[in-house]
Amino acid sequence: MISHISPVGSMALLSQLEVNQLKYSASCETYQLFRQCSLAVLKSGSHTDSSKEILEKHKDFEINVLHQERGVILELLNPPEDAYIDGSLIRGMQDHLFSVLRDLLYVNTQLQPAASSVFNSEQATSLVFSILRNANVLKAGVGPSVVVCWGGHSINDIEFAYTREVGNQLGLRELNICTGCGPGAMEGPMKGAAVGHAKQRVSNGRYIGLTEPGIIAAEPPNPIVNELVILPDIEKRLEAFVRFTHSIVIFPGGPGTAEELLYILGIMMHPENKRQPLPIVLTGPASSADYFKAIDEFIVNTLGTEAQEHYQIIIDDAPLVAKLIKKSMHRVKEYRKAIGDAYSFNWTLKIAEDFQVPFIPNHENMADLVLHRDQPKEQLASNLRRVFSGIVGGNVKDDGIKSIEENGPFLLTGEKDLMLRVDKLLKSFIGQGRMKLPGSVYTPCYKIKT
Amino acid sequence: MISHISPVGSMALLSQLEVNQLKYSASCETYQLFRQCSLAVLKSGSHTDSSKEILEKHKDFEINVLHQERGVILELLNPPEDAYIDGSLIRGMQDHLFSVLRDLLYVNTQLQPAASSVFNSEQATSLVFSILRNANVLKAGVGPSVVVCWGGHSINDIEFAYTREVGNQLGLRELNICTGCGPGAMEGPMKGAAVGHAKQRVSNGRYIGLTEPGIIAAEPPNPIVNELVILPDIEKRLEAFVRFTHSIVIFPGGPGTAEELLYILGIMMHPENKRQPLPIVLTGPASSADYFKAIDEFIVNTLGTEAQEHYQIIIDDAPLVAKLIKKSMHRVKEYRKAIGDAYSFNWTLKIAEDFQVPFIPNHENMADLVLHRDQPKEQLASNLRRVFSGIVGGNVKDDGIKSIEENGPFLLTGEKDLMLRVDKLLKSFIGQGRMKLPGSVYTPCYKIKT
Amino acid sequence: MISHISPVGSMALLSQLEVNQLKYSASCETYQLFRQCSLAVLKSGSHTDSSKEILEKHKDFEINVLHQERGVILELLNPPEDAYIDGSLIRGMQDHLFSVLRDLLYVNTQLQPAASSVFNSEQATSLVFSILRNANVLKAGVGPSVVVCWGGHSINDIEFAYTREVGNQLGLRELNICTGCGPGAMEGPMKGAAVGHAKQRVSNGRYIGLTEPGIIAAEPPNPIVNELVILPDIEKRLEAFVRFTHSIVIFPGGPGTAEELLYILGIMMHPENKRQPLPIVLTGPASSADYFKAIDEFIVNTLGTEAQEHYQIIIDDAPLVAKLIKKSMHRVKEYRKAIGDAYSFNWTLKIAEDFQVPFIPNHENMADLVLHRDQPKEQLASNLRRVFSGIVGGNVKDDGIKSIEENGPFLLTGEKDLMLRVDKLLKSFIGQGRMKLPGSVYTPCYKIKT
Amino acid sequence: MISHISPVGSMALLSQLEVNQLKYSASCETYQLFRQCSLAVLKSGSHTDSSKEILEKHKDFEINVLHQERGVILELLNPPEDAYIDGSLIRGMQDHLFSVLRDLLYVNTQLQPAASSVFNSEQATSLVFSILRNANVLKAGVGPSVVVCWGGHSINDIEFAYTREVGNQLGLRELNICTGCGPGAMEGPMKGAAVGHAKQRVSNGRYIGLTEPGIIAAEPPNPIVNELVILPDIEKRLEAFVRFTHSIVIFPGGPGTAEELLYILGIMMHPENKRQPLPIVLTGPASSADYFKAIDEFIVNTLGTEAQEHYQIIIDDAPLVAKLIKKSMHRVKEYRKAIGDAYSFNWTLKIAEDFQVPFIPNHENMADLVLHRDQPKEQLASNLRRVFSGIVGGNVKDDGIKSIEENGPFLLTGEKDLMLRVDKLLKSFIGQGRMKLPGSVYTPCYKIKT
Repeated sequence: MISHISPVGSMALLSQLEVNQLKYSASCETYQLFRQCSLAVLKSGSHTDSSKEILEKHKDFEINVLHQERGVILELLNPPEDAYIDGSLIRGMQDHLFSVLRDLLYVNTQLQPAASSVFNSEQATSLVFSILRNANVLKAGVGPSVVVCWGGHSINDIEFAYTREVGNQLGLRELNICTGCGPGAMEGPMKGAAVGHAKQRVSNGRYIGLTEPGIIAAEPPNPIVNELVILPDIEKRLEAFVRFTHSIVIFPGGPGTAEELLYILGIMMHPENKRQPLPIVLTGPASSADYFKAIDEFIVNTLGTEAQEHYQIIIDDAPLVAKLIKKSMHRVKEYRKAIGDAYSFNWTLKIAEDFQVPFIPNHENMADLVLHRDQPKEQLASNLRRVFSGIVGGNVKDDGIKSIEENGPFLLTGEKDLMLRVDKLLKSFIGQGRMKLPGSVYTPCYKIKT
Repeated sequence: MISHISPVGSMALLSQLEVNQLKYSASCETYQLFRQCSLAVLKSGSHTDSSKEILEKHKDFEINVLHQERGVILELLNPPEDAYIDGSLIRGMQDHLFSVLRDLLYVNTQLQPAASSVFNSEQATSLVFSILRNANVLKAGVGPSVVVCWGGHSINDIEFAYTREVGNQLGLRELNICTGCGPGAMEGPMKGAAVGHAKQRVSNGRYIGLTEPGIIAAEPPNPIVNELVILPDIEKRLEAFVRFTHSIVIFPGGPGTAEELLYILGIMMHPENKRQPLPIVLTGPASSADYFKAIDEFIVNTLGTEAQEHYQIIIDDAPLVAKLIKKSMHRVKEYRKAIGDAYSFNWTLKIAEDFQVPFIPNHENMADLVLHRDQPKEQLASNLRRVFSGIVGGNVKDDGIKSIEENGPFLLTGEKDLMLRVDKLLKSFIGQGRMKLPGSVYTPCYKIKT
Repeated sequence: MISHISPVGSMALLSQLEVNQLKYSASCETYQLFRQCSLAVLKSGSHTDSSKEILEKHKDFEINVLHQERGVILELLNPPEDAYIDGSLIRGMQDHLFSVLRDLLYVNTQLQPAASSVFNSEQATSLVFSILRNANVLKAGVGPSVVVCWGGHSINDIEFAYTREVGNQLGLRELNICTGCGPGAMEGPMKGAAVGHAKQRVSNGRYIGLTEPGIIAAEPPNPIVNELVILPDIEKRLEAFVRFTHSIVIFPGGPGTAEELLYILGIMMHPENKRQPLPIVLTGPASSADYFKAIDEFIVNTLGTEAQEHYQIIIDDAPLVAKLIKKSMHRVKEYRKAIGDAYSFNWTLKIAEDFQVPFIPNHENMADLVLHRDQPKEQLASNLRRVFSGIVGGNVKDDGIKSIEENGPFLLTGEKDLMLRVDKLLKSFIGQGRMKLPGSVYTPCYKIKT
Repeated sequence: MISHISPVGSMALLSQLEVNQLKYSASCETYQLFRQCSLAVLKSGSHTDSSKEILEKHKDFEINVLHQERGVILELLNPPEDAYIDGSLIRGMQDHLFSVLRDLLYVNTQLQPAASSVFNSEQATSLVFSILRNANVLKAGVGPSVVVCWGGHSINDIEFAYTREVGNQLGLRELNICTGCGPGAMEGPMKGAAVGHAKQRVSNGRYIGLTEPGIIAAEPPNPIVNELVILPDIEKRLEAFVRFTHSIVIFPGGPGTAEELLYILGIMMHPENKRQPLPIVLTGPASSADYFKAIDEFIVNTLGTEAQEHYQIIIDDAPLVAKLIKKSMHRVKEYRKAIGDAYSFNWTLKIAEDFQVPFIPNHENMADLVLHRDQPKEQLASNLRRVFSGIVGGNVKDDGIKSIEENGPFLLTGEKDLMLRVDKLLKSFIGQGRMKLPGSVYTPCYKIKT
């Protein structure tokens, strides 16, 4: 099957130089990235969380950019069938295909050359800013309204219903949702907010998905996402989340959620961020109370009680969550105004280089992580984040899965008590089925050596 | 509690003469209608289907129209609390309040005087047209896309999920939904279509609710409805449905749904409508197969096999339903084009006066219904429709409930075999819990004398 | 030549009853009005100011309303050729044709029946309001911004350039222009404002023309007019002007302009309007200073010095005019807010019945006018207005011209000194060529008997 | 006087790195360019054509980019007063200021680094494309509609009226105007088209100005321009014109117009462009007939009769010009479709490197020009273009004027007969007052040595 897709928006206009970069070629890395992300987008709504599985099932999929009198068009060979209704590609997927094209082109043609040199914190931030601006998700002259929702892609029905209700309550207060754009806790708040927005006749409700090439196939954008951005790596994606948002809600989740929580705590604990008003709410239904107790305990025992000051836990009270978040928007606005920072991008938030430098979770790097409490809290947070980041990779990312298949589980070494706490938390995730989608058996991709 | 609501759209501009009509006064009928419909709108989403209950619970509710420099505003005294989020009326309800205002004013000031004389079929149709045009639901220059969905307000979870999936499939095909605007089968297709529209980036999806003052409190508009029209009575509402729509989907339901089916069959069986392409699909999940068998049987045994030609039954295949409807839109378009009729209003559909004259379902009129098979099929359909119309009134409408409380059940007399079939159908509705919302015990409001 | 014109906006949707009213028939008055106004619209930009001439030149012009699948269409037989570009009707004229259709239908089907009884001041005002609202020129929620510009259709080049510069200055201040919609002083300010708006990127600049069936052929809407309303008679048109506007600028003109000035002064001098803030500026280029001196003198000598308080004369200073008007908008806003009146329609302005009752300027009525100073000033203003109104009719309106041709000039009788002043003013108009377009010789349509 | 200007559109969002580039500093070239172009924009409508004069008059003007919570703002110190209405900057100028900011930033931060290497024809074209795309003037999915109008900034009243009438006729046919954005023949067609568009209710009429830093101060954007692009040099500007347009109209003008005509003829005579449908119409009022005879003669005598095939001369027939252009749009569309080229950018038009390499018109380069007929016609066209380009520089550009003041006139050497023809043409420009705005005395900036 061959299908031709007309472009949307500015993507209709590409120069020959740009088109050349995306020409099919087995060896061209940009093309491979483009093909893989496009495939992920077309699998939106599919019920697997293994990138590898998806990629293997659609080996004959190809995508080409063609020139044409009215701009460029995309040619899809053997695309997944569910992406089509009566022979036409679902419009939302079409949009997402062109978001992929936009972001990959932007990163690869405009910015990569300059960025290839030594790491520079300011440039990394500028890159994140430029990608978001180019994707048109930064809106000037609009007050704070973004709620980042983090949480597991694999959650149970009660948890899902709860994330939806929180979304509804946020939507009724005309707030916008930004997530990692997959299923579970990334989909529920968006679905709920869509209904809340409809009730309030908010026609320009925003459902923003921030993803990266490594994770997109495992967590394809759910159908509600109407703004999709592909950041080049997990560190840029995390930075995009926290500079773009005005508040954070964390639902139950697995290692990915733990990574995100450690990331934001590591940042908020930085002395320069003392005055930053960024509400962080951990919330779930009554049945998830124990889960949050475990997380809370882990945080206290690793990062200390001062870490607790940065978040609050609310159990089973969606309206309260939404009210709190709504209220905090005013504080965020006042703060940004006072220091002259933009509403749409938090320039003044201090993010230490540790949190910006891309971490490649191979066996060697994982084994080398410095895991003891005898280091500044932000640094410990950074290293713990890498632990969980690596485990996510080993669980669902294509490279990670292959590497584990070849070399066995990651080996983690460190201070005994600390490692026991990590182990305990991970085991609770396994017990609660948060590592993988229900139905699959989970084989740990890590081993803890204490 | 007092709340002031700013107007939306053209309703901001009223003359003093118009405002006077809606001035509070216990005796003024227009005011009472306005108050009652407004209250119903504010109860959107409440879980009761008894108008009487709602009206009694909110005896102290009042609504006033006030003049003001930027137009008029509405003053609400003691409005239902759930209509508010953090002190602000939900925007959708605000819209609906002004739809109520718009339609009542239009009917009462512009058209009533002229319409008060003897019944005139052409004038009745013009009135329906004018109300819809004034409500801005008729769109010129737009092709056929409306699907009227009929079905019960009280359906089970499996049925509800099915109506939602049909809605999703219709939405994915960019079709618009029009229903009676209450819960159950009137809400499901709209919710589903909203998701389908979101996937297709249809930002102007239409969720049209057509209601009337007698039923609105029992079936308040669900939150998805974004165009609400209050027709003056059930006959105008039914005429509005069939002249406005381009296709009809009927889900499982109770006597209201039976009324609607008999109404449309009575019309489609009229010789002048022989060529009218109006697809009618009866559909439900596998578990509802028996229900449709019973309906089908009843139709064959009362209106004959020729009635069957006008509808088809599809069990448990939502995509097929949507595909069929989508396809039929082309036929509707061709037909309207060929005979020069408008897409937005089916002027040429013949509706016999029988179906237009308002039927007041009091004990006397119900007892007088001519119920035997020795009359033309269309006429029998018309009389059977009145039977079910009366039973809906006795079940959920304020006047009807009161009348039954005072005078006991309606008495229905007619040809024995016919009455037995009516009885059987009604009993199956009772058995399946389709008369009232779950949780309430149903006491029949009718007695059949054979 | 036959041409078919698709409808724009809501006019696409008409009921059969409505279409019937406009069916061609020599005897049907509504049809004749419709035909005549349509012809006038199609002559927009033509260089004649004689209705009669236009009507006679296009005797074979016909216009029909046809039903069609996508709404109604207009069929034009033998339309004026200049209205077409490469075979297509200019869009602006198409708009105006449908404005004509809209207003005639509205007045004739909706309101005439009720209005046919005895004269009622409140009903007359409601009618003006309803016509404007139906034409969608009343915008709720928008602050004061309308400047009515009055002045002659026949002015010299220097005056025209000046009206354009005033328009430019008003447009630069984002004010909107409303005129009688013909050439000369009715076109200049609109042209100027269009450029001013363009500089300020005002994309929704309003160029509103208020006209009436009797004058439209003599003063067809200039090409800039983008909102056209046809009021049923000159009195409704004048009332529409003053209730709709927030300020008035008067340029040099002839008897029509004198009529307008007398009308507004008669109203503003009413005791109940003492507090109404309605700035009235008389302005022109340096070369028009004498003209305004003459007008000013006439006013003082007829209505007295207290009349002078209501206007100011500014010579040759367009920016000052615009600054003054702009400033006054705040006062208008404050006043309306304080008394709770609408911004878009001045409900509280008192207009005495004298100014509302339609005056038919036939020989008898003209001869009967009470013209002496021994009456209240408002009444004298009212009667003087009628003098000038009649002369406009005799100069340019179809009926008037015919009547003068048959019966000779109007005879005006009254107090000697008063009549001399009237005569002097009229003669100065003749001397300055303000009665008719340049090129034609003017034969007075009146005789003054003192 | 200090004035703060809020940003419009995407310019509100700048990174710190970008803002730094525009920081005030006497030595920073980008800042100086930014300041100079901004000043030119603020002088829009002023009656001087000497860049130098403007720059000297406003020596104390400064412009700064400031960061702020809602994005960036511009701070203007001592801006020209006429740019303000009652203390507020005219919106159109505000837009243009941000266009300047946008284009300078884009060229300087994104593209300059890459472009600094050796000249590359494909890269030059890509740069032009990228600048236009970034300025959002390329619209995908829109058919051909652009008419480039070339002609003098200094033309007489009759010529100006004619350019306006051609504009009106083009506007009535819903075509869009692109010019060099100054006064005279660059303003007339836009003004006319604005009225034509208004008559046709075209609300998104495009008035595109393409300019470059050297010329913008001498020819500031007229008030109608609603899309302004600053290309980095005259060669990019010319390439932008011809790749962006679908047709060309040439009005009377001076050396700039001659440059443009030679440029497009040199390109159209290239063998690879044989099939390119690009209508070129030379037109003017009856009084300009001789002017075009002179031009035509010059072309025949330098480039030969084959050059004549590429243009046609129409005297005094604006509707015919517009009809021809309108008709040709279909041919352009068919051609682009057939070869698969974009409508919005003519990728396949061959432009020889000669026409792309920036020519710096200093005394040395001017003296070195190869001016004889013993070279291919395209090359001769290219060299003749440079002659006229240099003279424009010496007449109105800041650098050019200074250089002439210091070093005396340019010396031009070449084949005698050719040089005589050049001289004759230039003298006729002088005689007709086309070198400079009326009122100033023209001192030739060149000397011809034969």
